[in-house]
Amino acid sequence: MKNHLVIGNKNYSSWSLRPWLLLKVKDIPFEEEKIYLYRPDSKQKLKQYSPAGLVPFFQNSEVKVWDSLAICEYLAEAYPEKHCWPQELQARALARSISAEMHSGFQLIRNQLPMNCRQKMNFQVDSDELRMEINRVNSIWQDCRMHYQDKGDFLFGEFSIADAMFAPVVLRFNSYGIEVGSVARQYMQNILNLKAIQEWIEEGIAEKPVIEQAEI
Amino acid sequence: MKNHLVIGNKNYSSWSLRPWLLLKVKDIPFEEEKIYLYRPDSKQKLKQYSPAGLVPFFQNSEVKVWDSLAICEYLAEAYPEKHCWPQELQARALARSISAEMHSGFQLIRNQLPMNCRQKMNFQVDSDELRMEINRVNSIWQDCRMHYQDKGDFLFGEFSIADAMFAPVVLRFNSYGIEVGSVARQYMQNILNLKAIQEWIEEGIAEKPVIEQAEI
Ligand SMILES: N[C@@H](CCC(=O)N[C@@H](CS)C(=O)NCC(=O)O)C(=O)O
Ligand SMILES: N[C@@H](CCC(=O)N[C@@H](CS)C(=O)NCC(=O)O)C(=O)O
Repeated sequence: MKNHLVIGNKNYSSWSLRPWLLLKVKDIPFEEEKIYLYRPDSKQKLKQYSPAGLVPFFQNSEVKVWDSLAICEYLAEAYPEKHCWPQELQARALARSISAEMHSGFQLIRNQLPMNCRQKMNFQVDSDELRMEINRVNSIWQDCRMHYQDKGDFLFGEFSIADAMFAPVVLRFNSYGIEVGSVARQYMQNILNLKAIQEWIEEGIAEKPVIEQAEI
Repeated sequence: MKNHLVIGNKNYSSWSLRPWLLLKVKDIPFEEEKIYLYRPDSKQKLKQYSPAGLVPFFQNSEVKVWDSLAICEYLAEAYPEKHCWPQELQARALARSISAEMHSGFQLIRNQLPMNCRQKMNFQVDSDELRMEINRVNSIWQDCRMHYQDKGDFLFGEFSIADAMFAPVVLRFNSYGIEVGSVARQYMQNILNLKAIQEWIEEGIAEKPVIEQAEI
């Protein structure tokens, strides 16, 4: 069986974007299957693949693996020549730290600024807690870029899993007009310039379904 | 510099328990430093170590790394002979899937059943959503144990990061008298029998500070 990635709506499914983007940017062949979420039969379809009943889900003849971060770790192991994680030890530890921080945290960004490729507005940030989360993302991007800018356009120079983990946040900040510092803004632009990201956004916009909970 | 792990209160800090337990069970030497949480000066102390301002945090002469899962992944790389992840490919993918599922999900278990080593009560589960999360944990434990029971006492036979990730849930279910199936119950007992877990619980109970938000 070939690499098979199950994703949700491109317009909304932030977790799906992560492994999809890693596969695309690293030029790892795969076929994708889309399951539109929050329809009457969605859960049943998801459960046919994933015991967690969520996307993303990945399988090939060797493994079944779910959750965005676990899929990325699997790909890092399966394709060592693609350098999915930074090669240098401290950079890799740092990349794993911020990826895990993103994976388990930032609840307010997640809830209040849902990923929505079609959205374009100026969101008024009026809570201190949301502002703190935004500032933390800004610091992460800024610190990484200041440190690794000589090595390339991404958080650790070459594109890595850390960029895949933060790409949905780039789309959110872009949709809601969230202001960040100039270094972070340039990084956002580098992500938005990726051919694969443009493809994802175009397809997301072209999708028909609207998920009311994700429209603010 | 030796391996240095910064943790929070043993009584309450579920995320701290994970890398601590992995280090102990795998017999990896380290020194621990405890920062009591939610005191006036806690945040400032945390920030001296971790840019995220959270525990756990780990460092040695080679790396600084934070977040429970990222620390565990670092240890898996740094000590390959300890088999922190299962050695077989599909088992490892599955262990990563359920560890990541735990790391990013189960919000209701986290909020409604806070880890508290001193607590012993019968919690009435009255919401369907909480019940669903509990059932999902039960299924994960049961499926793994049914499949790997010949290989040892833990989720994938030998103790792995997956067990470290779920150990705080074992303590929560034990504190709140949450009912699970017999296979899952036996697994909980295997975790509770670990010398390191008993040491953690004893020290947690002996700590003086009380964190009101974590008392229900
Ligand atoms: N921690 C998981 C989260 C996955 C997740 O929450 N996926 C959402 C879509 S972005 C989903 O499948 N929702 C469908 C549902 O809840 O029925 C990951 O990183 O993959
Ligand atoms: N995703 C992080 C979460 C860490 C976390 O939330 N730690 C809590 C204690 S269990 C903390 O440091 N709280 C202190 C605070 O918020 O000031 C991990 O897995 O390490």
